[in-house]
Amino acid sequence: MRPPAFLLAVTVSATPLPALAADVAAMRDAALKDEIAWDITEGLTTEVGQRLAGTEAEARARAWAVERLKALGFTNPRIEPFDMPVWVRGEEKAEIVSPFPQKLVLTALGNSGATPAGGLTGEVAAFRTLAELEAAGDAQVRGKIVFVDHAMGPTQDGSSYGVYGVVRRQAPSAASRKGAAAIVIRSIGTDLHRNPHTGSQSWSEGAQPIPAAALSLPDAEQLKRILSRGKPVTMKLTLTPRNIGTRQSGNVIAEVPGRDPSAGMVLVGCHLDSWDLGTGAIDDATGCGIVTAAAKRMMDAGQPLRTIRVVWFGAEEVGLFGGKAYRDAHRNEKHALLAESDFGADRIYQFDSYVNRAALPVIDRLAAFLNPIGVAQGGNSARGGSDVAPLAATGVPVIALRQDGMRYFDLHHTPDDTLDKVDRDQLAQNVAAWTAMLATVANDATELGPVAPTEDE
Amino acid sequence: MRPPAFLLAVTVSATPLPALAADVAAMRDAALKDEIAWDITEGLTTEVGQRLAGTEAEARARAWAVERLKALGFTNPRIEPFDMPVWVRGEEKAEIVSPFPQKLVLTALGNSGATPAGGLTGEVAAFRTLAELEAAGDAQVRGKIVFVDHAMGPTQDGSSYGVYGVVRRQAPSAASRKGAAAIVIRSIGTDLHRNPHTGSQSWSEGAQPIPAAALSLPDAEQLKRILSRGKPVTMKLTLTPRNIGTRQSGNVIAEVPGRDPSAGMVLVGCHLDSWDLGTGAIDDATGCGIVTAAAKRMMDAGQPLRTIRVVWFGAEEVGLFGGKAYRDAHRNEKHALLAESDFGADRIYQFDSYVNRAALPVIDRLAAFLNPIGVAQGGNSARGGSDVAPLAATGVPVIALRQDGMRYFDLHHTPDDTLDKVDRDQLAQNVAAWTAMLATVANDATELGPVAPTEDE
Repeated sequence: MRPPAFLLAVTVSATPLPALAADVAAMRDAALKDEIAWDITEGLTTEVGQRLAGTEAEARARAWAVERLKALGFTNPRIEPFDMPVWVRGEEKAEIVSPFPQKLVLTALGNSGATPAGGLTGEVAAFRTLAELEAAGDAQVRGKIVFVDHAMGPTQDGSSYGVYGVVRRQAPSAASRKGAAAIVIRSIGTDLHRNPHTGSQSWSEGAQPIPAAALSLPDAEQLKRILSRGKPVTMKLTLTPRNIGTRQSGNVIAEVPGRDPSAGMVLVGCHLDSWDLGTGAIDDATGCGIVTAAAKRMMDAGQPLRTIRVVWFGAEEVGLFGGKAYRDAHRNEKHALLAESDFGADRIYQFDSYVNRAALPVIDRLAAFLNPIGVAQGGNSARGGSDVAPLAATGVPVIALRQDGMRYFDLHHTPDDTLDKVDRDQLAQNVAAWTAMLATVANDATELGPVAPTEDE
Repeated sequence: MRPPAFLLAVTVSATPLPALAADVAAMRDAALKDEIAWDITEGLTTEVGQRLAGTEAEARARAWAVERLKALGFTNPRIEPFDMPVWVRGEEKAEIVSPFPQKLVLTALGNSGATPAGGLTGEVAAFRTLAELEAAGDAQVRGKIVFVDHAMGPTQDGSSYGVYGVVRRQAPSAASRKGAAAIVIRSIGTDLHRNPHTGSQSWSEGAQPIPAAALSLPDAEQLKRILSRGKPVTMKLTLTPRNIGTRQSGNVIAEVPGRDPSAGMVLVGCHLDSWDLGTGAIDDATGCGIVTAAAKRMMDAGQPLRTIRVVWFGAEEVGLFGGKAYRDAHRNEKHALLAESDFGADRIYQFDSYVNRAALPVIDRLAAFLNPIGVAQGGNSARGGSDVAPLAATGVPVIALRQDGMRYFDLHHTPDDTLDKVDRDQLAQNVAAWTAMLATVANDATELGPVAPTEDE
């Protein structure tokens, strides 16, 4: 990079070699026409498709990723393997046996137990909320097929997933502990299409695995209407998922080497694995496209001060295995900053940071670059995206570029997570924001830490 | 009805007992708050759900219909049974074997042949249009799995279904005659959800049944992208539908008796059967709700001049068996007018007629009642909805109340045809238009015919 000629923001401190403001703005604006992120997203979802963690499909995705990162000119694309337990989906059927015989559409939740091959029939015990289920006496639940309804709506920041996601994560164990034969929940989602939302859950202490599944939203509405007639409702479930033991997954890692190794790395991440129902377009091929396109643009602009490390994490969906493996393998390396893209590809509307207060002038400078593309400055208490969270929790600075989540949970973890849902203009705005972020932070030697470890570890 | 006090339109002729304009307007406006149509739609889709023609589910739907029509106070609700051949869906799976292994989502078309139970594997031969397939040499097709793509867009009047529906109706036979092993088409639809569109097709002379299915739109796009890589594409299909022989279906019929049998009946129709994937909400529970609600409102307003006959036709989807059976059984009765609702429940934007020119003043008077709720007057060359078309073709007047079709083919014949897609305000606007139509036509003795038989018979 050339030495600075002029600086945009009056708050800029005299740090060594900060990015040239005109260069950053030009790189940002050029990225608004980015096609690299689209090409990666289109390629991965077309040539691999779904890539459930620990399966042969995820292995093909890793090979694809190494090949693509090599073709883009990244340094040392490589796989860091790790082992993990693997659960795979089987047959999935549900029907109302009485009073109104009809089929329902559902899908098993991660780690669901199986019904007998011929299915399991039981009376439905309905609860409006997780709290109602938890408050119920065992007699209301024992031997029944529990149904938990709820009423998730979309929020821009995705926070409703935190609120309602507990139904998926905790209701199966709660039902199991009370002796339920099985559980079906209303999908954790915000659409009205007959594409159920899967997702991870794990059995808590004392909870034996039982069949656990999510009804599509229209099917949950239908079951609620059927129950409203006041007659006992009998349901038959056939779910035959199984655990297939320990398999290999892995993280795919590559770099744009920086001029000053002592300045620490900027890690930009995404996750390579997907759930098995869709093709993992918005979750999270776009994330890999966005961070890789931004890093490639940095590579092409000349050697950055700091090394940029791109990590396509494995096995995020099923338990953050990749993020934890990365933390364990790399926690002693100097990471200047962590950032992950894992919330689709709709436009970034805000960014937050978690840096030492002394480094806030860098964040202010970044804000001046992001504001022209519609990104507001948020606060300084960001936590990392899911895969970088384990390392971030040890006390590493973070920047979070927040994407509009209003339609994310229409698609998330469903068969409908396919390429056609990606808006190319919004995808490019993401790349522009990430490029501006890297051009600001990777060319500025200001220490962003230390920051206090967070409770997440 | 009381005698007329004043008349809205100057074109009104001095027919016996035409409807009182103020009464018609009041009935129309009261119907804008209609709940009868919603209750029928909600009840039928919840308490029966899918009701494939000729199956036990359609029989339950007939029993439900008789019960509901009786509860609403209609005269002589009854079933007129007829026999028909029945085809039922089996297992449905598809996957790309190479070069990029992944599952695809599809559904069999009506009368599809079956693959072996273990599936059928073949190379894909792709054609952009039906015309391309028809122009292809047999060698390009023989032993292959044919894929026909196309590019249907939505139109307000649904006319694109006519243009692109030929792919579904004709491509399977064309592929079969050229020796194809199977055929998959892009669903005849306008959405981008992973819910394929089924629909009827029948094998033309010389075409042996082969497996025939429709890919969801995102899956068709995916297959197109996979093909664009230029490598041979191998697909495996497993489809096990079967013909189960002759079964009973039936039409459900009831009346609001009129004061003057010699004036002929006004028949308002819909179809009771549905495809088996959704719950048949917009196709066509809403149609039954709309026409029945309008007829009930007429019943409650006092005895009409003409008898209003409500017909919930059976077995429409799979070949108009109900419409043809009705024509054969009732062609010698005097039908003053035929009208059917079978295009969802979005708002009516226009109406067309097919009446004798001497009766056009009645149509003009109706226009004056419909205009205030956003319905424009169209032309006088309407044809009947599908079930009334066979009788209409013998030379019976028709009114067509046209619904907005912009989102109809997002849902039509898919698992997504469920109650949540019905807009209650637009549904009530439909009832208001139908009520105004009945209040105008059923209380006016003007002969609407004779009209010339049409070529459709």
